[in-house]
Amino acid sequence: MRAIQITEFGGPEVLNLAELPDPVAGPGHLLVEVSRAGVNYADTHQAENSYLSKAELPLVPGGEVVGRTPDGRRVVALVGTGGYAEKAVAPAALAWDVPDAIDDVTALGMIVQGASAWLLLRRSVHLAPGESVVVHAAAGGVGTLAVQLAKAWGAGRVIATASSKDKRDLALELGADVAIDAAEPDMKAALIEANEGRRVDVVLEMTGGTVTDQSLRALAPFGRLAFYGMASRTAPQPVQPANLMAHSTTIAGMWLAHVFQLPGDVMRTALDELFALVAEGRLRVVAGGEYGLGEARRAHEDLRARRTSGKLVIDPSR
Amino acid sequence: MRAIQITEFGGPEVLNLAELPDPVAGPGHLLVEVSRAGVNYADTHQAENSYLSKAELPLVPGGEVVGRTPDGRRVVALVGTGGYAEKAVAPAALAWDVPDAIDDVTALGMIVQGASAWLLLRRSVHLAPGESVVVHAAAGGVGTLAVQLAKAWGAGRVIATASSKDKRDLALELGADVAIDAAEPDMKAALIEANEGRRVDVVLEMTGGTVTDQSLRALAPFGRLAFYGMASRTAPQPVQPANLMAHSTTIAGMWLAHVFQLPGDVMRTALDELFALVAEGRLRVVAGGEYGLGEARRAHEDLRARRTSGKLVIDPSR
Repeated sequence: MRAIQITEFGGPEVLNLAELPDPVAGPGHLLVEVSRAGVNYADTHQAENSYLSKAELPLVPGGEVVGRTPDGRRVVALVGTGGYAEKAVAPAALAWDVPDAIDDVTALGMIVQGASAWLLLRRSVHLAPGESVVVHAAAGGVGTLAVQLAKAWGAGRVIATASSKDKRDLALELGADVAIDAAEPDMKAALIEANEGRRVDVVLEMTGGTVTDQSLRALAPFGRLAFYGMASRTAPQPVQPANLMAHSTTIAGMWLAHVFQLPGDVMRTALDELFALVAEGRLRVVAGGEYGLGEARRAHEDLRARRTSGKLVIDPSR
Repeated sequence: MRAIQITEFGGPEVLNLAELPDPVAGPGHLLVEVSRAGVNYADTHQAENSYLSKAELPLVPGGEVVGRTPDGRRVVALVGTGGYAEKAVAPAALAWDVPDAIDDVTALGMIVQGASAWLLLRRSVHLAPGESVVVHAAAGGVGTLAVQLAKAWGAGRVIATASSKDKRDLALELGADVAIDAAEPDMKAALIEANEGRRVDVVLEMTGGTVTDQSLRALAPFGRLAFYGMASRTAPQPVQPANLMAHSTTIAGMWLAHVFQLPGDVMRTALDELFALVAEGRLRVVAGGEYGLGEARRAHEDLRARRTSGKLVIDPSR
């Protein structure tokens, strides 16, 4: 089969098209004929081995696929690695049936980004109706869904940040009440101004560095910041617990992989809710572009350069 | 009137009995003939001016009273300062009527400690049924109530820590499933062992130092630690947001004063729920000792030496 293979860690240049043997599904696993593979920011960390979980070489990158099993089930699945390929193997416990009404890009948009947005709002910050919500990187995979979910679940003012006018326009189109420049030098002041002079209740943050630092300082009492990524590759300042107490603020880390350590099938619950909102027309995945297998490098380049909006997928048939 | 007055900041020795003019209630305030004044750990910080909010001299310490207004209402009230006295003045917005069935010590136990336990579990950590809960200082004012509330709200295993066998026995009597020594040198291991080998879901922490550090490390994925005090007067280590992400853990600061910046009358909601649980026999305040006005120094000495359990009050009539 055709696949992308990495034999040394690095930037987009290490993604090479290769002819590899078909993978074999062992016990408790499913073979998936890949219709589309999702491209995530985490894949760029996987390629350079800077992700939370360490990778081993040689590596077929790509953590999520949608496609058919040999017995005809249509599933969306988390595969860890091996997604950028014509065939992939998924643990049966990490494959979920997809209703026919949900298209490939939407299914892929829900399994990582949708579930992340769901977990961030439901489990990390416990969004309450009427609360103000800041969504950083609001035109990104999680961001576009978080803006819509926050609105669907009764948030008050939703404040988006994004790095270009096009992205800010997208965030507004998805329901954000206001969209500000991600490059605002004084993010604390910008967020409070965007919230009509009031501190904010909830922040979803995946940028890192001063954006995290200043967003924390913009929180209202009992405000919560969920930290779920560090796209700038710059660590925020360490947080003093006494400062959190002095302002009654919360910082919640979130890494999607831990959802599988929660009791019950939280992913199934999340996907059911998300698919239902899609069916009701209250939630949609923004398609961000489709690449052939041989264009995987360009996909990573575009993602790292923050040139994309919405869900990127690879079509392994080309 | 008789009152305790501080003319220089310091330890228990600065609490002096004095004869002062009766306070006068200005507009929007109520005069309260004090039946009992509560003694809180925060008062010891107030006396040495090490609390989150700075104090000014001369000062009558004491932040909470229960008593009668001139028109006969029985109220429990937050007064900021001025509680250790025969008469005190409270903002009308910070005085709540108390049902006759609730005694003085119970009313005082709810206004700060009860409301804190309520906010910690409901708003800081969002306790879900079945979750394991660690209550540090479980024999203290907040701790004794938090143990009972966690159980009443469906927590799974409740793990208490306390510094003496008597205190641990009290925690068990109040419903804790297990009680461990607060001086355990490896608190992370001790908490996980007390939770039958599993990491813990929720920690309520007011000690500081290594207890905070190690409790954070004992959290399960999506676990939350609420930090609401630093009784050891030692700061925990700073927290790296990337570490919180790597473990999907949350640290939530909580200072009761911020409840008044939340929309709605959250205190009234909390007190109604708490008084109802008391009436149902599912929640009780542990009386920790009653001191005359002239014994205020000894009350602070006992509190600082961690010799007390439960709610301490001052009877200004003696």
